[in-house]
Amino acid sequence: MDNLNLGRHISGQFNDDLENIINHAMHMGGLVEKQLRDSLKAVYENDAALANIVLSSDYQINNLEMSIDDECTRIIAKRQPAAGDLRLIMAIVKTIADLERIGDEAQKIAKVTSESFSESQQYLLLNLDSLGHNVLALLQETLDAFTRMDVDAALAVHQKDAEIDQRYKSLMNELTEYMMKEPIAIPQMMSVIWALRALERIGDRCTNICEYIIYFVKGKVVRHTKFEEIHL
Amino acid sequence: MDNLNLGRHISGQFNDDLENIINHAMHMGGLVEKQLRDSLKAVYENDAALANIVLSSDYQINNLEMSIDDECTRIIAKRQPAAGDLRLIMAIVKTIADLERIGDEAQKIAKVTSESFSESQQYLLLNLDSLGHNVLALLQETLDAFTRMDVDAALAVHQKDAEIDQRYKSLMNELTEYMMKEPIAIPQMMSVIWALRALERIGDRCTNICEYIIYFVKGKVVRHTKFEEIHL
Repeated sequence: MDNLNLGRHISGQFNDDLENIINHAMHMGGLVEKQLRDSLKAVYENDAALANIVLSSDYQINNLEMSIDDECTRIIAKRQPAAGDLRLIMAIVKTIADLERIGDEAQKIAKVTSESFSESQQYLLLNLDSLGHNVLALLQETLDAFTRMDVDAALAVHQKDAEIDQRYKSLMNELTEYMMKEPIAIPQMMSVIWALRALERIGDRCTNICEYIIYFVKGKVVRHTKFEEIHL
Repeated sequence: MDNLNLGRHISGQFNDDLENIINHAMHMGGLVEKQLRDSLKAVYENDAALANIVLSSDYQINNLEMSIDDECTRIIAKRQPAAGDLRLIMAIVKTIADLERIGDEAQKIAKVTSESFSESQQYLLLNLDSLGHNVLALLQETLDAFTRMDVDAALAVHQKDAEIDQRYKSLMNELTEYMMKEPIAIPQMMSVIWALRALERIGDRCTNICEYIIYFVKGKVVRHTKFEEIHL
């Protein structure tokens, strides 16, 4: 397996433009990561003010997606890059679409703060927080793999997302059982369910981004392919 | 408001290539529409065999997404299209990503067939089917708007998706109340909840596609903008 240094691709006359786009995409990734971290903190500390900040600040991320899209279109029109560079730009366009949606999912997590939970329900929030931090770590690894266009790191994310899916399923079963025992708590539990689901989907979106990285570096073989079937 | 005839954009030397890409994207749209229709039929008629067909045939849609992505990259590299045509190609790349995910959501609906429902629970499935057919109609209108790059039709989808969201919320409240009354039925109800959620998300993805259409035709003003704020 080979690691691809992005430097190899930053060559020729559109060097600066491409570097700018990658920097903006990384800046967007940083904001999305902050959204997720803040949403988990808001729920953990029951901090409605922080939740409101998360809920009201996605316009920055949306604007970045649009302006990076524009930059990508402009660089293609202006520089007419070769196929390899073009594939990198397509990978960036797809990545930022997933990043934007991760920001949306973070907002769903922040909404848990609008519900009240009894002392005996706190362990469910702790489970949510624990899975949340696994997903946050996965997002960080994904952004890191993206920055370095690192196929090995991207494949590792693929594997870890399977663990997160397992954990998600067992927490979901636990919540289902809890609701069956305490039907009065179903409305609060539904908010936890949506937050868990949001975490699971963030994991899937990290996997998407890693597939774009692998696709860009390796060609089309691995997208929509089971991890076990990928032979590098 | 003006309708944009796609013919205006099919000009110059890359005419045939672009027409091919659009035809392939429409073919993909047709398959995704069939996936949704079949998944609703499988649930309505409790047809496990049809559900299995839905669950096992997404590879076609995945393959189409990848091959259209490749076609788009190739046409850009080969033909070096002008900014307007390039924006159309970017809109297609983003649209097929959403179409592929609509296929994934259809599979979640098909999974409802693996649960058994009592006579008294049938009305919940009828509600699901009814919302499902609203969403199917929305998808058909979206594909139609895409084929014609029709901004008016795209804006109409935007408005109808808000109605679907309302309907989704009220059905979700109904299900929550049902679960509180009949906690023993929670596991089956969770499968209905995931199917309802899948329908709501298909509506959101139709809205995304319509935003790409508006974005392509009108420029960047309307993406991530509330419908009420769009002045055309």
